[in-house]
Amino acid sequence: MPQLQRITIAFSQFHDEHITLTAEQQHYLCRVLRLQSGDRFIAMDGMGRWWLAQLAGTEAQVLQSLTVETELPIAVTLIVALPKGSGFDEVVRYCTELGVTCFAPVVSDRSLLNPSPQKLERWRRIAKEAAEQSERTTVPTILEPISFSSSLSLVANKKYICEARGDYPHLLSCLQKKEDGESNLNDEKTIVIATGPEGGWTETEIEDAIHAGFRPVSLGRRILRAVTAPIVALSLVAAAHEI
Amino acid sequence: MPQLQRITIAFSQFHDEHITLTAEQQHYLCRVLRLQSGDRFIAMDGMGRWWLAQLAGTEAQVLQSLTVETELPIAVTLIVALPKGSGFDEVVRYCTELGVTCFAPVVSDRSLLNPSPQKLERWRRIAKEAAEQSERTTVPTILEPISFSSSLSLVANKKYICEARGDYPHLLSCLQKKEDGESNLNDEKTIVIATGPEGGWTETEIEDAIHAGFRPVSLGRRILRAVTAPIVALSLVAAAHEI
Repeated sequence: MPQLQRITIAFSQFHDEHITLTAEQQHYLCRVLRLQSGDRFIAMDGMGRWWLAQLAGTEAQVLQSLTVETELPIAVTLIVALPKGSGFDEVVRYCTELGVTCFAPVVSDRSLLNPSPQKLERWRRIAKEAAEQSERTTVPTILEPISFSSSLSLVANKKYICEARGDYPHLLSCLQKKEDGESNLNDEKTIVIATGPEGGWTETEIEDAIHAGFRPVSLGRRILRAVTAPIVALSLVAAAHEI
Repeated sequence: MPQLQRITIAFSQFHDEHITLTAEQQHYLCRVLRLQSGDRFIAMDGMGRWWLAQLAGTEAQVLQSLTVETELPIAVTLIVALPKGSGFDEVVRYCTELGVTCFAPVVSDRSLLNPSPQKLERWRRIAKEAAEQSERTTVPTILEPISFSSSLSLVANKKYICEARGDYPHLLSCLQKKEDGESNLNDEKTIVIATGPEGGWTETEIEDAIHAGFRPVSLGRRILRAVTAPIVALSLVAAAHEI
């Protein structure tokens, strides 16, 4: 129901089949969106559930729960070496649209140090906006920046590290490769993918990642910017799991 | 040889195994890049050929021709409904990195009108920079903006139009589908992919495209921005042809 307006409603506002609207929500629905009694909208609980609701004065009636299938069938965590300038803003916006579950920004040997708390707030705001715009039901988590070595201890069924130089197999072929005669897609409930800074990962970083269970992969024959690599990786993961 | 500096040399500067350098090129190599006689660099003719060269005073010696395999094995033309603001800058930058051959910016029912000639110049400059940065050997062509109906007459082996709403097959599955028992990847020497404006294509536009031989496809279950869709499409085309 993409044409209907959507607002987030707290669980405590639901009473049987009714939603008690706050003054702010009434203002937003009636004054900003110009809905009238009888008009429909979508109530979201921010936890992945949506309901079709109908405005009725200062409250709303719940008509039915909605099935929303805009989330990926797997949880994808992106380890991203923080790019220069405002590059991570773009990573957050694009990858949220593409279905990422969690961002783990990391400080690597070749990336920037110590982003301010304001930056973290800004990234979380961008993630929220992008999730709404792309009609996702959940907003990805953005972790506080950690060191590359800490990020290697993230747990997942499959772990990949993307590297432009070197003769590694393509991420897409790894994602689609059948293992033991079966597609491995069904077994991948959680994936972690790491993409490097401008200039690529250092040899030591690659070795440490391999030691921690990461598989080195390629994203193609061209040299991608630090901002582009995670977007390409997410495009491939999403497509491999949605076809 | 990513660590070597690259400069573009005109065909007329090649004489047998030697390159006569212009004063400007000498300045760039010796003063800006600080190369000395005996140092090596890469000479590109801008048409896809690279040579390893060695600086020798005011000229350079050609040591060997280089094989560069950073181009896709297919020619991909992107029909892109011009997004709002400077959004097309991003499309050009990302998709050039991903290997696109030609951009056909179009003015659709829901997109902007009449970009200035300065914009076209700007897009071409971005394409050149992105091609160099991603170590491509050719710079994609950017056509003058055309109408959507004109873009439909572009010729290719396979033509796709991406649409978020509607129950269409995924682009990746179309790219990878075997036809007549054979992979169709080898037959696709040219691909045209159209991505829509904010708000999507109109029903008439989709119908006209289908009539012109375009296959409607999906890029996944989420609603992508007009800027994001071509980047995802190129990620999938490049990966499908490089694995």
